Amino acid sequence: MSEQILHAVFLVAITAEAMTAALAAGRRSMDWFGVAMLGSITALGGGSIRDVLLGHYPLTWVAHPEYLVITSGAALATIAIARIVHRLRHAFLLLDAIGLVVFTVIGCNIAMAMDQPLLIVIVAGMITGCLGGVLRDVLCNDVPLLFRSELYASVSVVTGAIYVGGTRYGLPPEAVMLTAMTIGLTLRLLAL
Amino acid sequence: MSEQILHAVFLVAITAEAMTAALAAGRRSMDWFGVAMLGSITALGGGSIRDVLLGHYPLTWVAHPEYLVITSGAALATIAIARIVHRLRHAFLLLDAIGLVVFTVIGCNIAMAMDQPLLIVIVAGMITGCLGGVLRDVLCNDVPLLFRSELYASVSVVTGAIYVGGTRYGLPPEAVMLTAMTIGLTLRLLAL
Amino acid sequence: MSEQILHAVFLVAITAEAMTAALAAGRRSMDWFGVAMLGSITALGGGSIRDVLLGHYPLTWVAHPEYLVITSGAALATIAIARIVHRLRHAFLLLDAIGLVVFTVIGCNIAMAMDQPLLIVIVAGMITGCLGGVLRDVLCNDVPLLFRSELYASVSVVTGAIYVGGTRYGLPPEAVMLTAMTIGLTLRLLAL
Repeated sequence: MSEQILHAVFLVAITAEAMTAALAAGRRSMDWFGVAMLGSITALGGGSIRDVLLGHYPLTWVAHPEYLVITSGAALATIAIARIVHRLRHAFLLLDAIGLVVFTVIGCNIAMAMDQPLLIVIVAGMITGCLGGVLRDVLCNDVPLLFRSELYASVSVVTGAIYVGGTRYGLPPEAVMLTAMTIGLTLRLLAL
Repeated sequence: MSEQILHAVFLVAITAEAMTAALAAGRRSMDWFGVAMLGSITALGGGSIRDVLLGHYPLTWVAHPEYLVITSGAALATIAIARIVHRLRHAFLLLDAIGLVVFTVIGCNIAMAMDQPLLIVIVAGMITGCLGGVLRDVLCNDVPLLFRSELYASVSVVTGAIYVGGTRYGLPPEAVMLTAMTIGLTLRLLAL
Repeated sequence: MSEQILHAVFLVAITAEAMTAALAAGRRSMDWFGVAMLGSITALGGGSIRDVLLGHYPLTWVAHPEYLVITSGAALATIAIARIVHRLRHAFLLLDAIGLVVFTVIGCNIAMAMDQPLLIVIVAGMITGCLGGVLRDVLCNDVPLLFRSELYASVSVVTGAIYVGGTRYGLPPEAVMLTAMTIGLTLRLLAL
């Protein structure tokens, strides 16, 4: 049950992060494959860095190449929509916030399954949650949102701490997961 | 036979990519070791990222440290030449295009040897072809050429698709390889 | 004995590098966790890249999560001090120079323990010494100090060469280590 929910929110999160990449890329004269590549790097980059640092092979998208299709498709669809709809700055920040909290929980989950110590579990969540967006911003030559904004990395840490704490105390995983993500998302949106 | 050709074009490509790094670095007051380091990162960085992501150890330049000598030497020689010859913008773009298509084919080749699924083979080619130049541009604080330019990542995908497709259909590898690289190079040069 | 000295200087170097991160971040409105994260990436990033490239698992900070506490703490303490003390540009360059030479020696040491060839040992030192600072500067959207400054990568190479050369000739490790670091630090400070 928890596995299925986690998989569903993972799909939502990679779609959301790929969309932020397309919005960030919006005004550049990038070709379609460039947009698809940036979308995939943003959506799957944080998790890839986590897996490489922890030596956790094969990487998610190597085992499941279909995730590359989803993230590329989401980025390209967003480019098409962005030509019609304007005022997307709020959408960008909301989608980025969703990715932040969901990826944090997923990153903690993978490190817990590897029996990493508590601090590494929290850090794995932070890497997964924050670094995809950092890659996006560095590749677009912006100062990363993480370093422009209060309550960004800290939201990831709070989300991870609630999730890990609740799980260790034996509370029902689905409830803990949704609570952690809701509190994290609320904090992040209040900070905008 | 195919192995030997591939090795020869690999040497051409790492030399070309190292030269682009030196041209990009040209006007900065970098010391010689900095130029050598940037040349090696540009020439060998895309392949290193591919190998790390696929868990393909040891990395090419760890197994063959002489490649570091070649790329460092090429970068330093280019710095010396660049002080004499001017108008090197076209040389930069031509060398970068050669690196793009050759590295794409090499990246596909390595992923095929690992029996990766088709999509991962194409992506491995794209990573190898595109990311060395992205590292160069990020380290020089430029927006990556990949994200400034139409027909860049797409040239890598087309090159990879022709190579992989032709190889799967049992056509002679040398002919497929040279055809893929020629079409890719032509497309990229037409886009400049 | 040599092990203990090396460990002590390692702690000094990660503290120094984390402090440079906080100084670089100083004027941005980053939250505390962002500062802690940037401090840890700067202090432990060069070594992490070295370990990933050489396939040397587990990474230092995964095996010793307490290093994350040290680097985060050093970064946060520096932020607090920086609000009181001004004119910290010289402190920044001095701390960065200490990190450069100490990490170079440590990087060489790890590659020697893996029986890597001589050139890879020097390169491992250079990666460990230089790339943490490069990550810091790229994440802050600055041109890396490495690429703005003469005598930077070369200081790392000279330091590494003295250390590796002296060790191979069977000189006492502590003396070789301190000599290499002193010469490297002197060269770097003379270049400022």
